[in-house]
Amino acid sequence: MTATLSAFMKEYKEVLERELKELVAALQAPAVLKEAMDYSLQAGGKRIRPMLIFATLASFEKNPRIGLAAASALEMIHTYSLIHDDLPSMDDDDLRRGQPTNHKVFGEAAAILAGDALLTYAFQVIAQDESYSNEEKVVLMKWLAEAAGPEGMVGGQMADIEGEQKELTLSELEYIHKNKTGRLLAYSVMAGALLAGATEEQLKYFEQYAFHIGLAFQIQDDILDVEGSEEKLGKRVGSDSANHKSTYPSLLTMEGAKAQLAQHANLAREALLQTKAESALLLDLVDLIATRDQ
Amino acid sequence: MTATLSAFMKEYKEVLERELKELVAALQAPAVLKEAMDYSLQAGGKRIRPMLIFATLASFEKNPRIGLAAASALEMIHTYSLIHDDLPSMDDDDLRRGQPTNHKVFGEAAAILAGDALLTYAFQVIAQDESYSNEEKVVLMKWLAEAAGPEGMVGGQMADIEGEQKELTLSELEYIHKNKTGRLLAYSVMAGALLAGATEEQLKYFEQYAFHIGLAFQIQDDILDVEGSEEKLGKRVGSDSANHKSTYPSLLTMEGAKAQLAQHANLAREALLQTKAESALLLDLVDLIATRDQ
Repeated sequence: MTATLSAFMKEYKEVLERELKELVAALQAPAVLKEAMDYSLQAGGKRIRPMLIFATLASFEKNPRIGLAAASALEMIHTYSLIHDDLPSMDDDDLRRGQPTNHKVFGEAAAILAGDALLTYAFQVIAQDESYSNEEKVVLMKWLAEAAGPEGMVGGQMADIEGEQKELTLSELEYIHKNKTGRLLAYSVMAGALLAGATEEQLKYFEQYAFHIGLAFQIQDDILDVEGSEEKLGKRVGSDSANHKSTYPSLLTMEGAKAQLAQHANLAREALLQTKAESALLLDLVDLIATRDQ
Repeated sequence: MTATLSAFMKEYKEVLERELKELVAALQAPAVLKEAMDYSLQAGGKRIRPMLIFATLASFEKNPRIGLAAASALEMIHTYSLIHDDLPSMDDDDLRRGQPTNHKVFGEAAAILAGDALLTYAFQVIAQDESYSNEEKVVLMKWLAEAAGPEGMVGGQMADIEGEQKELTLSELEYIHKNKTGRLLAYSVMAGALLAGATEEQLKYFEQYAFHIGLAFQIQDDILDVEGSEEKLGKRVGSDSANHKSTYPSLLTMEGAKAQLAQHANLAREALLQTKAESALLLDLVDLIATRDQ
């Protein structure tokens, strides 16, 4: 990672995590619900989605903090999806980033409710923000619901569950990942571009950038499940293969998967050049996503 | 029920159910997810929350259909909450309105996802509606998130789970019901009043009306769990007592609970007079809520 990106991410990770803490603390709600929400929100990670919002704003020489409410909402949605995915009836995971999963600490009922609460609060956070115009709020919430709901992440998750234990085609696998992971990554970039005042044409190229980094992200995820370090990832590796899950390496061979990854990274870089924005941080993020080891 | 209210409810129940069917059919999403969403949305019920939106609009002599998107969103939120409440780790119910619960038909993972999808789609439905102004959309979504999320319904549900198996005070019981049921009923009335163009003062009285019908609704719910007919309710009665749950009859005696019910119904009627709206339907709804047998 370049020193510039590293410093940027460190600064805005802190800003975001402080904001998330304050947003939960401000709630008039049962203490145990707030604890369960806070527990998973503060469980770390690189905060790649919020960073995409902040870095996109920076690429227009705007103050990245303009994106704080949108980034907080986004991270709440991402976090709720992890809590629900980890449930016994879903992936049944005991560990997430090396820590016990939400339902292991708070019980299954509280984990379901903490997820529901984070999902709902995400919209409240955007709706109540005082710095966005009503028009910006409506577009942000519409895009967020499309990216996170039945036509996006939840749809992808459903298709993923249906596709378990059977051999998928590459296009079925792409559908799953485009929706399960890609739509929310794309939202990050688009929300940042919207708040920066991007033109329609710029939005189009940012969307392409987001699409390709989304697929690159997922291919690298599949690769890490084969070649990654359990210690760095904070979770078991080899679970896709053990569960007979279709992945990029299983469909394309490891070599083929790595070639696809490189191709999507290149297409992301090309789209970025077309945006004509000041894209150093966003280029660095492509490298980070394509070469991450955790 | 008066003939006027009965005809009104029949007409708008059909309008709503057709709209809900079309909204799900329009989704680009996995078929099984759409089936699971549709199954619970079409499972019937009196649609009291949507009726409150439609009747509030009618009380201003506005076309009730103005409230269709808001009512659809609201019914999606209510339906998701029933799906999640019925899950094995929550209330573990096999039947809902005489039909197998969502997870009994589609499995637990799909039921969780169908709930998540309905919750998210509710916001999309408001955000994408073409008849509301951006200002109306933002207020509707802000109120909906407040009413449904950690500061409303989800908070009430968490407190309800925490309060199981212990003796609650009347004020703890009121907190639970105000949030678990009351906030969404209140939202119904307030959304209708907002879309009708009510003044600030009218909104204040509509809020009082909504608060009192919300509590009346819940007290009647507790009474029906003792005195109701299993056949009419489509679920077992006596479960509160069997689960040692605190209820209005258990805290106040049955006579005391019925007196409280009558009092809240009266306070609702008084608040309604203060709104100066044409309130015949809304008065009839007070009677319906206070005397319902299912």
